[in-house]
Amino acid sequence: MSEKKKYTIGINYGTDSARAVLVDVSDGKLAATSEYQYTHGIISDKLPDSNVELDPDSALQHPKDYINALKRTVPKLLKESQIYPEQVIGIGTAFTGSTILPTTDDGTPLALIEDYRDDPQAWPKHWKHHAAQDKANRLTQLAVDRFETFLDRYGGRINAEWFFPKLWEIFDNSSSVYNAADRIIEASDWIVWQLTGVETRNICAAGYKGLWSKCEGFPLETFFAAMDPGLANVIDKKMKREIMPLGEQVGELTEEAAKWMKLIPGIPVSTGILDAHAAVPAATVVEPGKMAIILGTSFMHMILSNKEYRVPGMCGMVEDGIIPGLIGYEAGQAGGGDHFTWFMQNAVPGEYEKEARKQKISIYQLMEEKAAELDPAESGLIALDWWNGNQSILVDADLTGLILGYSLSTKPEEIYRALLEATVFGTRKIFETFIASGVPINEIIVTGGNLTKNELLMYILANVTRMEIKIAESPYTSALGAAMYASVASGPEKGGYETIQDASKQMAHLQKKTYVPNNNDKKTYNRLYSEYTLLHDYFGYGHNDAMKRLKNLRINILDKKRG
Amino acid sequence: MSEKKKYTIGINYGTDSARAVLVDVSDGKLAATSEYQYTHGIISDKLPDSNVELDPDSALQHPKDYINALKRTVPKLLKESQIYPEQVIGIGTAFTGSTILPTTDDGTPLALIEDYRDDPQAWPKHWKHHAAQDKANRLTQLAVDRFETFLDRYGGRINAEWFFPKLWEIFDNSSSVYNAADRIIEASDWIVWQLTGVETRNICAAGYKGLWSKCEGFPLETFFAAMDPGLANVIDKKMKREIMPLGEQVGELTEEAAKWMKLIPGIPVSTGILDAHAAVPAATVVEPGKMAIILGTSFMHMILSNKEYRVPGMCGMVEDGIIPGLIGYEAGQAGGGDHFTWFMQNAVPGEYEKEARKQKISIYQLMEEKAAELDPAESGLIALDWWNGNQSILVDADLTGLILGYSLSTKPEEIYRALLEATVFGTRKIFETFIASGVPINEIIVTGGNLTKNELLMYILANVTRMEIKIAESPYTSALGAAMYASVASGPEKGGYETIQDASKQMAHLQKKTYVPNNNDKKTYNRLYSEYTLLHDYFGYGHNDAMKRLKNLRINILDKKRG
Repeated sequence: MSEKKKYTIGINYGTDSARAVLVDVSDGKLAATSEYQYTHGIISDKLPDSNVELDPDSALQHPKDYINALKRTVPKLLKESQIYPEQVIGIGTAFTGSTILPTTDDGTPLALIEDYRDDPQAWPKHWKHHAAQDKANRLTQLAVDRFETFLDRYGGRINAEWFFPKLWEIFDNSSSVYNAADRIIEASDWIVWQLTGVETRNICAAGYKGLWSKCEGFPLETFFAAMDPGLANVIDKKMKREIMPLGEQVGELTEEAAKWMKLIPGIPVSTGILDAHAAVPAATVVEPGKMAIILGTSFMHMILSNKEYRVPGMCGMVEDGIIPGLIGYEAGQAGGGDHFTWFMQNAVPGEYEKEARKQKISIYQLMEEKAAELDPAESGLIALDWWNGNQSILVDADLTGLILGYSLSTKPEEIYRALLEATVFGTRKIFETFIASGVPINEIIVTGGNLTKNELLMYILANVTRMEIKIAESPYTSALGAAMYASVASGPEKGGYETIQDASKQMAHLQKKTYVPNNNDKKTYNRLYSEYTLLHDYFGYGHNDAMKRLKNLRINILDKKRG
Repeated sequence: MSEKKKYTIGINYGTDSARAVLVDVSDGKLAATSEYQYTHGIISDKLPDSNVELDPDSALQHPKDYINALKRTVPKLLKESQIYPEQVIGIGTAFTGSTILPTTDDGTPLALIEDYRDDPQAWPKHWKHHAAQDKANRLTQLAVDRFETFLDRYGGRINAEWFFPKLWEIFDNSSSVYNAADRIIEASDWIVWQLTGVETRNICAAGYKGLWSKCEGFPLETFFAAMDPGLANVIDKKMKREIMPLGEQVGELTEEAAKWMKLIPGIPVSTGILDAHAAVPAATVVEPGKMAIILGTSFMHMILSNKEYRVPGMCGMVEDGIIPGLIGYEAGQAGGGDHFTWFMQNAVPGEYEKEARKQKISIYQLMEEKAAELDPAESGLIALDWWNGNQSILVDADLTGLILGYSLSTKPEEIYRALLEATVFGTRKIFETFIASGVPINEIIVTGGNLTKNELLMYILANVTRMEIKIAESPYTSALGAAMYASVASGPEKGGYETIQDASKQMAHLQKKTYVPNNNDKKTYNRLYSEYTLLHDYFGYGHNDAMKRLKNLRINILDKKRG
């Protein structure tokens, strides 16, 4: 164990757990890793230690889980790696977002204060919290009516998961919480505040979730006043106008925080960042022309550019939002991996489950093997990947999924493969839209959880996009990205790096194995993709609004049924 | 056991088994029933006692199975009911069709003659035999090119399952069998020949499967000559021009046949008839305005009329073909119950199978219960019922199935219900086409196997068609229909009936329970049906030929794969 080696810690706050990594700054090698499952996870039924029942769309979290994650994970890293605390030269965090919470002016969450603990509005709202849908719709309409320029940067729609719909929900539902809140803040900034005692707002969350941009700042007071006169001065009263670039040193680790983690006080702590965005440099993507695809329950597509292009239907475009000096575009597929989970849970016959048990493999593995035996187009099936609506390009949450081509000989593995293919056709649609809008894509790197191990999906990605598919080496790219940004915050004189590009060059790596398209399958997939496009445009652009009419009818029926 | 009571026997030759019923002529009551599973069933791999391998589309049968069915079932009827053989006043048969076989001039099947037994062309071709598809296509094209008037009576298309495509297949593939065949005959006529020693051709099979009509007879010699000069005189050389009405006495039971069945020689035997058509009078449908729906792996829709209307896209229109004196229209849904079997075999999760086992009910029962808990339109799903193409209205075997409206919360029971609904929407499409063409439908009676016990399907039928659904009482309507026609063949002086209408009045009954539509669900189904129609017309009338393109691509890929 060389005493000269320098390390940074990256902590990624996911939905159900936090993962901490200890990384060798010289080569990005993982010295230790540790995971902490939140005690409360997503709170959707009742508030903790209380009888207060929650709205069905609620997804709250417990601030103590965030602090406990620090206490439980970081000491293990040091123990496991047997390095000295002095070797840790920086700490960085990544966080889900928009996850927001109201606090006092010293950062104490209102949820932890006796007077507010029984009010759901006092609790951190996780990004999955969807109770502010009506607020989001009204915000979008307001922005459209006022010709707000910021709307273009967000594909024309404000998402219910973002900062201001949730803030408005607090304002509308609990004046006591709203008034008591000196600050309403992203969790990605709150955790940095806890570590350093310094309140900041990171550019990533502000840009992608808070309607902020480097050129225009936040929306005008008149916009907020149009929401409600009481919100006119929300920025100055509840937030901060200074937005901090990524990879900066926010402050130093406080005595208290150092004790939690058994570290030495004074270690540089870097700017907060959103989890998916932190994964981008850790997937080696730090320059224009490279796209990082983060494969999870949903898919996210991050691409960098020198110039600002208006790309229709993306999720967000933020200057310096992922990599300082570059414009970071984000697109998404809300269904993503959820399509495959849905299939496994709802459409795999018992006979197949038996076969998987017999072969002692998972049902995912069995289905992948069976589906991989098929040739492209062999099933005669084609699908539209809209089980969770269409997030990018069409930006329409009310679209639903479709499968076409069923025959009496259609097999489950054929349906599974059609879902994989449809999801990747959706990815190609995003690609083509970026390229057609002027944003070049010369290289694809994928990262994410188990899905990067799905060889069939990788093969389909290569042949549908007609590009070589490279895979990030680290299984924990969000945590690694946080650690990389920490190395930039600590800087070269302490053993870190000058820029995230330098850090990426040394610390981020790709797997050796890549997936290369082949000529035959590329051609077949071009033909299938043209069928996908025809259906995509027919159902997506209003030629036949069956999906929306059926969804409306469904909602009416359910409302009646529930009384 | 009253000696005065008179009985008839009906024998229904199905695909895998034959079912015989002994029926009280006075009230149609079932005195006994017996079933015989064919030893050979459908022969699709190798010829019996031979190494001759068969074409993958082959579906042959063994003539001995047909005779063994008589030997095994009829004696049991008498034994079980303990009636005297003298009480049996008539025998009738119903048969699948077009099921054809080549024979010598005494009716001996060539398949049973040493010289021909190793030639697949010598064997009975079951209706499911699909090796003559190319012949059917060429026949259709020929008829179109020659402006043949008969094509209108068959929805514009000659089916590969019918008589002449199969005959042409024999002619083209085996001149030795074709030349040795003194007769090529429908099995529905051959079995009557075996019972009576008299060769006849029944109007039902000749009309629905043999391109014959009362007005025009068979197609002209020039048509057959256009197929092949060697076929010019096929009718006179291999068949018979006299066509026998239904419910006639063809002849009397021979000594030999009486021995097989332990009956008395001389019993009247009635004209042959196809199985589904025999079910119509047994479902009480003997007059215009009533539609019988036969629910099986496919659905068949039979309606009677006084006048001849050109109904687009039906399967056949035959004067006297079901009930003497009336025009019998037949339409069909090739998918029918096969949709539900496909679903149960390919799309029910293991968890559901476990639940069914726990509740000790079948998976069909469990799925029906779960699907019945849903309201119409609650799932947000809609489907096109074309898993086996579209048989009637669009008459397009290359169409495939579709499901639209999937979300991450879509449950298997919702998909099952969407399949039930889509199949019934297809039924309504057939109804509306008949009505729009001038053929009134005032009453619906369903019959068939287990599907009439599916209460959810019955409920959906009522609410989608907006008519009361009545159900035939007998579970064996094809066999009962054959027995009813036997009672007409034996006539009033022997204790039978003058007409099939008289027989139906006494011998055919409906279940007491009927299914009545309700106002709310009717309205919701009207809305869903309008969505079905939009998709039906878009994909069915060539606005988007995705289904056909994908099917072609699939066939190309499979051809390549198989080398």
